[in-house]
Amino acid sequence: MDQIIGVESLRSLTRSVFKHIGCSDEHAELATEVLLRADLRGIDSHGIARLSGYVRLWEAKRINATPDIRVVHETPSTAVVDGDSGLGLVVGPRAMEIAIEKARVAGTGWVAVRNSNHFGIAGYHAMMALAHDMIGLAMTNASPLVAPTFSTERLLGTNPIAVAIPANKEPAFVADFATTTAANGKLEILQRKGMPAPVGWIQDKDGDSTTDPHALKGGGALLPLGSDRDHGSHKGYCLGAWVDIFSAVLSGANYGPWVPPFVAFLEPPSQPVGKGIGHFFGAMRVDAFRPAEEFKMHMDNWIGTFRRATPATGHDRVLIPGDPERATAAERETQGIPVNDKVLADLKDLADRFGLAFNQ
Amino acid sequence: MDQIIGVESLRSLTRSVFKHIGCSDEHAELATEVLLRADLRGIDSHGIARLSGYVRLWEAKRINATPDIRVVHETPSTAVVDGDSGLGLVVGPRAMEIAIEKARVAGTGWVAVRNSNHFGIAGYHAMMALAHDMIGLAMTNASPLVAPTFSTERLLGTNPIAVAIPANKEPAFVADFATTTAANGKLEILQRKGMPAPVGWIQDKDGDSTTDPHALKGGGALLPLGSDRDHGSHKGYCLGAWVDIFSAVLSGANYGPWVPPFVAFLEPPSQPVGKGIGHFFGAMRVDAFRPAEEFKMHMDNWIGTFRRATPATGHDRVLIPGDPERATAAERETQGIPVNDKVLADLKDLADRFGLAFNQ
Repeated sequence: MDQIIGVESLRSLTRSVFKHIGCSDEHAELATEVLLRADLRGIDSHGIARLSGYVRLWEAKRINATPDIRVVHETPSTAVVDGDSGLGLVVGPRAMEIAIEKARVAGTGWVAVRNSNHFGIAGYHAMMALAHDMIGLAMTNASPLVAPTFSTERLLGTNPIAVAIPANKEPAFVADFATTTAANGKLEILQRKGMPAPVGWIQDKDGDSTTDPHALKGGGALLPLGSDRDHGSHKGYCLGAWVDIFSAVLSGANYGPWVPPFVAFLEPPSQPVGKGIGHFFGAMRVDAFRPAEEFKMHMDNWIGTFRRATPATGHDRVLIPGDPERATAAERETQGIPVNDKVLADLKDLADRFGLAFNQ
Repeated sequence: MDQIIGVESLRSLTRSVFKHIGCSDEHAELATEVLLRADLRGIDSHGIARLSGYVRLWEAKRINATPDIRVVHETPSTAVVDGDSGLGLVVGPRAMEIAIEKARVAGTGWVAVRNSNHFGIAGYHAMMALAHDMIGLAMTNASPLVAPTFSTERLLGTNPIAVAIPANKEPAFVADFATTTAANGKLEILQRKGMPAPVGWIQDKDGDSTTDPHALKGGGALLPLGSDRDHGSHKGYCLGAWVDIFSAVLSGANYGPWVPPFVAFLEPPSQPVGKGIGHFFGAMRVDAFRPAEEFKMHMDNWIGTFRRATPATGHDRVLIPGDPERATAAERETQGIPVNDKVLADLKDLADRFGLAFNQ
């Protein structure tokens, strides 16, 4: 069962929790905005459901609430940022700001980040570029849950990519997706309901297809976008690998099987190949290519053309990337956010433990 | 039936054909190398099988054999190139050179191209970066064969993405893939053999799933990577859209349903929204992020780790992106290239018509 909680209640509690663990007012504010944006956009697995997880990582001394986020290397269009084990929710936006500053001068800016951790939804960071008439990109690696094509071993995270592209009258194009067939959050829903997973989402410990939603616990794995070789899983594997290499091999973070887990009860690998997890951000000034108004006019035409396409049997309309999340956000901004019982208990527990107010 | 033809015979004929239509020695040489690299790497649909197609486009005055390839706009890290209707096989490498030159100075270089046409395999262009210790990216849009998720209309091309990443002792990581579930070339093989297509490759004119390999002729479409909504086709749609927008909306080329067809017997749309087809290239200096030797040592570790992963039931080993193409190239370099009967007849016809030597 879900209970609807007002956005301001969740915002207030989240901000207080981040302040309680020692974040500055500014960082607590920012981390709260990034986290809640996930819930508002309907990506519940990446929002306040993770708040207690961040706290546990802080308690395990794996998150630094007062990080010194530094540029450790740079060129006119690139930078490497060391996040000093700070919240990814704070390190991410700072790195994206640097990408935007670089783009202002050099046309584009590209920032690889090491020594970070979970940064919320990739889309938040990519969308930061939009207000500057820039295209934004964001990707991050994550702890290994995904088996490359033909492998029984889990070597890649769900490694999402987000691309945000401004338009004029139309809302922006915002793609934000894991490079797997199905998000882990969708699998968790089936686990709770005791329902089988569709063929093509997961494999068992031997690499055989399975519909058991609990297969990951038995050594199974999520499958790359494409599901199997005949349906292009090697392409999903390429995408996940691309994200891993840009996020971590370029920055000096951990990659592949060395990426530390989000959950505090699992220890990070004992012999790391880098620092923390890695992200990669990009910002491209639209007018580094053609006048922004001209570009945005053509984006309106692009979006309108796709939106007006004849829908297939059984569907109302063709969606533009970002449409469903925007509709959910519009609804939840005013009506509140549905919070799962377990998550709600978690939040109440946090409020109690830290002596914080939580108006439900 | 395929006949094996020596690489030098094909190289010599192809060079002569490009010279015959008026290409300079330098352009004929380059176009030949790009085209044959597809055959060598086993991507037969993008190699000499297309030679007569380029000639027909030239005959239809849609390819300019003596283009004035110009930078029409630039910033320190970006450029827009107008290909002047030149062969994509020549325009592509020139644009990628500009990206590499930009990266040398600004750390990264990003070049959007308009007024071009088919550029061969995306991997060729991305791989140009490797010799400079740079990461290369290449993408291109193409004429519409793919239906976005929930659409009956074909609005996207197979829109490939290539990413090439240098390593040290290991060969480079080279991903090069269409953003569809299956390449059109694979479908053509099933059409020739009269065999059904796997479920998830194509849809019919109403947007329903079909296994009829001829469904495209009846108004059907290829499906984006992911096949259907439950298996992430909206992600493949996002990828194809990303390629289309970067290649064409940024550069001023035609996008979506306006992309002109490769085949000369189909007229381009009468009211274009841009010029020709579009490409997008990127080059990133590895040492714009961290010392190149350090990066390449970690790439060796990344590649070795994935290569040594335990294979799934029924498979010998886990592949690294680029492995299959490199193995095919090593074999074909010495033993020759298998050429399909129909393609061979096409080549002989070209040689006869133009009075060129062709040693088979």
